[in-house]
Amino acid sequence: MTSMRQFISDIKSNTPLHPILLDEPVSIDALPTPALTIDLNVLDSNLKKMQNHIDDHGMTLRCHTKMHKSPIIAKKQLAHGAVGVCCATVSEAEIMLLGEIENILITSPVVTEDKILRVMSMAKQSDDIAIVVDHIKGAQALNKYADADDINLKVYIDLDPGMGRTGIRPGEDALVLGQYILESCPRLNFQGLQMYAGNCMHINGFEKRQSKYQYILQKGLETKKLFESKGIPVPVLTGGGTGTYDMEPDIGFITELQAGSYAFMDIEYRDIGGQEKEHFDDFKTSLFVLTTAISQPQSTLITFDAGIKCLATDTAYPEFKDVEGVVYHFGGDEHGIVQLNNPSRTINLGDRLSLITPHCDPTVNLYDYYYPYRNGLVEEIWPISARGKSQ
Amino acid sequence: MTSMRQFISDIKSNTPLHPILLDEPVSIDALPTPALTIDLNVLDSNLKKMQNHIDDHGMTLRCHTKMHKSPIIAKKQLAHGAVGVCCATVSEAEIMLLGEIENILITSPVVTEDKILRVMSMAKQSDDIAIVVDHIKGAQALNKYADADDINLKVYIDLDPGMGRTGIRPGEDALVLGQYILESCPRLNFQGLQMYAGNCMHINGFEKRQSKYQYILQKGLETKKLFESKGIPVPVLTGGGTGTYDMEPDIGFITELQAGSYAFMDIEYRDIGGQEKEHFDDFKTSLFVLTTAISQPQSTLITFDAGIKCLATDTAYPEFKDVEGVVYHFGGDEHGIVQLNNPSRTINLGDRLSLITPHCDPTVNLYDYYYPYRNGLVEEIWPISARGKSQ
Repeated sequence: MTSMRQFISDIKSNTPLHPILLDEPVSIDALPTPALTIDLNVLDSNLKKMQNHIDDHGMTLRCHTKMHKSPIIAKKQLAHGAVGVCCATVSEAEIMLLGEIENILITSPVVTEDKILRVMSMAKQSDDIAIVVDHIKGAQALNKYADADDINLKVYIDLDPGMGRTGIRPGEDALVLGQYILESCPRLNFQGLQMYAGNCMHINGFEKRQSKYQYILQKGLETKKLFESKGIPVPVLTGGGTGTYDMEPDIGFITELQAGSYAFMDIEYRDIGGQEKEHFDDFKTSLFVLTTAISQPQSTLITFDAGIKCLATDTAYPEFKDVEGVVYHFGGDEHGIVQLNNPSRTINLGDRLSLITPHCDPTVNLYDYYYPYRNGLVEEIWPISARGKSQ
Repeated sequence: MTSMRQFISDIKSNTPLHPILLDEPVSIDALPTPALTIDLNVLDSNLKKMQNHIDDHGMTLRCHTKMHKSPIIAKKQLAHGAVGVCCATVSEAEIMLLGEIENILITSPVVTEDKILRVMSMAKQSDDIAIVVDHIKGAQALNKYADADDINLKVYIDLDPGMGRTGIRPGEDALVLGQYILESCPRLNFQGLQMYAGNCMHINGFEKRQSKYQYILQKGLETKKLFESKGIPVPVLTGGGTGTYDMEPDIGFITELQAGSYAFMDIEYRDIGGQEKEHFDDFKTSLFVLTTAISQPQSTLITFDAGIKCLATDTAYPEFKDVEGVVYHFGGDEHGIVQLNNPSRTINLGDRLSLITPHCDPTVNLYDYYYPYRNGLVEEIWPISARGKSQ
């Protein structure tokens, strides 16, 4: 017998957080498939490259853990120089805090009492918990609960980049909210503005993406100036992502980049295109789904054991890392049917092959463990601690 | 420090299997959203209706646990009269066995040593573990490992219904495999044929679905007759599903129905259409995703906290159970953006509403727990024990 509060607390405390060490290295060829693997050499190189870019341009990096859901990887990003993390949900943030990551921005607003109380509970444990607000009602509620708990909470105003997802309208509406927070919410410490143009990240073609992104961020820049003209300093401008990382310095709005996918990469990001090149490959693919050929009912096809319960279906088809001339179709929940058009190698029953994922975030969210490897050998297993933490 | 074998065994033994009892009932309005809920009155009615149909037509029901991933629900189906369960993967079957369900058919072939050894380990614990084979190599391997372990394993021959997913070609090819098993695989006990026409389940329109299904199953019928003409009895013909449950008696091939979705239902199945009616509603929706309105950047839209990490994206959009005149679009990993065309009720920030899921199986696979309720009250929480068990 338990209470709902105790149940939620138990889920949290039962979450595995630490690497599981293997007594001897295991070849990736011996993993139970489908398995989510990480090429550690590529991961390291991606983390380093992004941090160098950030450092070179006087920005800071607040990496988004909604992508990898792992305090282990977040700590690597912090070790490379990130100032903190951002989380999409309260329960994801709770796991990061439990994993000893103390500087956390929750990038989506909360409005109900149960979630606000969970934010307050985190803010009692760390002075560096922050959350976005996008409505006076939300600010009122946060201030009220912070006051009841005798704590001060860092907040950012979330600006709607025109997506209609979250955020307040840039300009006057945002200013009114900012003034309200400064004048009427003594428990809320205004940190700056968030503007995440998710509607720009995957525009194909560098120039097209840059042009639309610049147009949208113009409203953020104007809002910042409006705040400053009223004597409200805006120390941090947080947002942006993998798809715009190299545009931010020229646009000059974002001071703190919220990138996530750069660590793993996927087909969706690869295909947006880079500066003067077809593929966006500034960061390389480090995440793969290892899958086994299990059946071949027809000679022109071969069936693998990874279906829509193992690969995100919201964008593209997966592609093999090392085989050309084939198409991987989803064959239901547990199968992928590979059309053998003009395969660059033979594929036999029992063969294990690595897939590049269509979209890394929702693919990761399907697995409980990562199998990180270096030179084909797995030495430890990493729990995907915040998987399924969508609350 | 652990070995890979011990790690896999630990995952299994750490899986929660039993209902978590709450010390007092909780209203579904108090659940942390997004939450996966089950209307128990509807679930019970669906289970009863299907079992009555099965009993009335002299068939047996082997319910598919790939849909609900829960030994708790499987046991309810067995209590209603199902003869056993089927599982899509080895790791799913392991969880069902651990949950004290002993009659299990694995509906997809295995070809690699690691998976075969796991099947053998299960077969040592229960005489009623069965698996499909669709290739002579698979039969050879199973027979070899069964012999090494001194066990006998039940097998079904999987027939390809023309999908090219798994299965051997019906007719002569299947007969050759059957004769091989009978003559050269003394450790394999041939039980019958499996033919699951997944390519028919979601054909919209009853007549169209029936016509294609009948045509496909004709090959199964011919294969059965071919086996019998060679003196090979075929006691069980297993397959079919929710979309064809009421066609099976007339077609006369399937003796054992492998239905899953009838217990929960979803938009995809509702929209296939029933006999002389637009919607297939022989079974009612018992599964919902409860979600909260968290932001409203524009007056014609409102944003909820359930995105593509909480709802399957392979088919349709989700729909609200109790609101008409709106469209739920995916707004990324964690958000749904609802277009308020002509809403049948007002929706305010903080409101909690239930969504009908687009496709139940992959939606269930995103959650760790069910919140089953009766008359709006949750008395216990059910772990989704085999969630993520895709191996």
